[in-house]
Amino acid sequence: MASNLTVNGSRLWETILVSASIGKGPRGGLRRLTLTDEDRQMRDQLKHWAQDGGYRLSIDRLGNMFLRREGSEPSLPPVLIGSHLDTQWAGGRFDGVLGVLAGLEVLRTLDDLNLQTRRAIEVVNWTNEEGARFSPPMLCSLAWSGQASEEWVNDRIDKDGVRFADALARIGYRGEAPVGGRTVDAYFELHIEQGPKLDETKIPVGIVIGGFPSYGARVAIQGETAHAGPTPMAKRSNALIGAAMVAVAVNDIGWAHAADDAKATAARLDLVPNLPGILSEYAQLFVDMRAPDVNRLARMKEEFLAALPGCAERSRTQISVAEEWGFGVFDFDAELIALLRDTARRLGIPTMDLRSQAGHDAYHMAKCAPACMIFTPCKDGITHNEAEDIVLEETLPGVNLLLNAAVARANR
Amino acid sequence: MASNLTVNGSRLWETILVSASIGKGPRGGLRRLTLTDEDRQMRDQLKHWAQDGGYRLSIDRLGNMFLRREGSEPSLPPVLIGSHLDTQWAGGRFDGVLGVLAGLEVLRTLDDLNLQTRRAIEVVNWTNEEGARFSPPMLCSLAWSGQASEEWVNDRIDKDGVRFADALARIGYRGEAPVGGRTVDAYFELHIEQGPKLDETKIPVGIVIGGFPSYGARVAIQGETAHAGPTPMAKRSNALIGAAMVAVAVNDIGWAHAADDAKATAARLDLVPNLPGILSEYAQLFVDMRAPDVNRLARMKEEFLAALPGCAERSRTQISVAEEWGFGVFDFDAELIALLRDTARRLGIPTMDLRSQAGHDAYHMAKCAPACMIFTPCKDGITHNEAEDIVLEETLPGVNLLLNAAVARANR
Repeated sequence: MASNLTVNGSRLWETILVSASIGKGPRGGLRRLTLTDEDRQMRDQLKHWAQDGGYRLSIDRLGNMFLRREGSEPSLPPVLIGSHLDTQWAGGRFDGVLGVLAGLEVLRTLDDLNLQTRRAIEVVNWTNEEGARFSPPMLCSLAWSGQASEEWVNDRIDKDGVRFADALARIGYRGEAPVGGRTVDAYFELHIEQGPKLDETKIPVGIVIGGFPSYGARVAIQGETAHAGPTPMAKRSNALIGAAMVAVAVNDIGWAHAADDAKATAARLDLVPNLPGILSEYAQLFVDMRAPDVNRLARMKEEFLAALPGCAERSRTQISVAEEWGFGVFDFDAELIALLRDTARRLGIPTMDLRSQAGHDAYHMAKCAPACMIFTPCKDGITHNEAEDIVLEETLPGVNLLLNAAVARANR
Repeated sequence: MASNLTVNGSRLWETILVSASIGKGPRGGLRRLTLTDEDRQMRDQLKHWAQDGGYRLSIDRLGNMFLRREGSEPSLPPVLIGSHLDTQWAGGRFDGVLGVLAGLEVLRTLDDLNLQTRRAIEVVNWTNEEGARFSPPMLCSLAWSGQASEEWVNDRIDKDGVRFADALARIGYRGEAPVGGRTVDAYFELHIEQGPKLDETKIPVGIVIGGFPSYGARVAIQGETAHAGPTPMAKRSNALIGAAMVAVAVNDIGWAHAADDAKATAARLDLVPNLPGILSEYAQLFVDMRAPDVNRLARMKEEFLAALPGCAERSRTQISVAEEWGFGVFDFDAELIALLRDTARRLGIPTMDLRSQAGHDAYHMAKCAPACMIFTPCKDGITHNEAEDIVLEETLPGVNLLLNAAVARANR
């Protein structure tokens, strides 16, 4: 059965436009941070779509939303398709959104065709994927996959001091379903690439074979307050200058490895007290480095650590790595990757293998279930920017691949 | 009359200790930001001292407090001695405080000696000198000297969005006296040097001949948001990196001129949105440069402006000077400087001429009255730091100079 199904592209696009009208950003994108009123409104919309389609909605205690289209053998572990509906502070209309709504379109297409799969298919909207409000990103798939406790998630604090649990309760999306603890047959996530490769090559589908080895660090720079006016240069210990030197060094490392598709980022800098008239006594800088292979990443990390003493000496500050972490060193499920490749070949869809450079909920799901990802093109690779854009026709091959592969898996 | 008067050093020290107990910082200094509860408590204390001494207290509509010891000819313009009792976020116990309390000690010494001066002597505590809460610093002497309107001052907003007028009303120090508009015979301000010269040379008094030519700029860096992970280096326009490059360039300029006693500072950096996961699209950096002479300052400013295009190109951001200002190019009153020199010679107090590198209320008062400043030593030049320290014995020569010169002027 189910040899060459196709989704309804215009219906998919309409759902995307509905989403794009909820929590509009000032420049045509979205600012729909997790657990805000805008997020609630989008969740209400998804709930409404679930009711319309007759999909059973279950919401767990962290607000993760599951829309279930029942299979002929309800006791079998379901196939899960998901992503997230929250966005960045200056987010686009497709990052995350496309993955959830493509899942919804899969369910609707099966309704159109009156096809029942053997296993149920569920579409999931994960809470707080972006990490733009509560840290870390991919927070609730982390817990769902058994890698963090609910208590720990509930105690996460946003920058205004609001607890995750309180924000979730406020918007009325603290459900009753347990968080995780059930078997999933397979997890599929479709996402815009967030890089320029598919757009440049005009290949419509990226089969994501795994993560991009990544290294993160929180650098602490300790200086000393002093008057910003008379204090002689030789007596200064300005944390801002120490942090600026580290940021420039990190950027230089990124450029030194750019030809090999590596990146190094200083994305966030906090200063204390950050006032005119007084030199800052403390700074923390968040550093992120990504490389296509672990050896290059190890070299970049070495160069980064080697740069710190020089920055400290030149700025007369104390600089240390206060915290560090790594991620992205893993491969997605070989069987699912083979299924995607075979299905694409059968459908005549050109694909290329890619590694995901951004984190995704699929990273965490890969720890508790066979997981895979499909990338679709995004214009110029622009993302986390309101100008983020896609072309429907270039996106549909990926969505059709998702449909056919998920159905094949659900009928297994 | 009044040929060689001396203050009561231990009484002065006691008042300083009382002040040091109000709004204590976590590390032994003061955190007594203007118009906070701590500031109110210190103002209440000053009011109490005024009542004890029988000095007429008048508070103007911006909260500036004047303690008047009447002269034998009350209709003559008074001699004013003043500074400020507010401090930085990480402030010391002496910056500003010493000047007000030295003035109080002058009044008390005249009481001890039962001396009435011809002109009244008034001690003033200026509101919001530091600029740590409301911008700009020296806010209320600016208005008092006729260089800003009360309305403009009242509408200043702190970083929490609180209006100056509301903060002032809240602590109950919105008085009824008009702001300025009366003639002052002379303005004296005693202040710790906030630099290391007196401490290094062990000369107890600096006669401040004028300001240190200073240039300030608010630099705007326009970037573009993008995903902090996958975005290729060549497609990034990270405002944080642009700002870091400017900060490093400014610091380098400071060092290039450090041997000539010049400084260049990047003290405050604001980033938008400053989140992990997304490159910042906007930054503003506050730059401050000070030099002993206008020619050197002009060179430094040229070097600064010349550095910006390179920073913009290397960071792929747009960098511009959004606002710039200058100050410090003026001399204090020649007659008062001569009075200070003559008086010090008569008292056998060694002095050196200095230019003030920090801004002071005396800068503004110099626009509406003959004004002068006396510097006293501070340990290692450390200031705007809780470790700020002085030695009473090294401070008393300056306070005695203030006493004798102010009395001489008041008897003129």
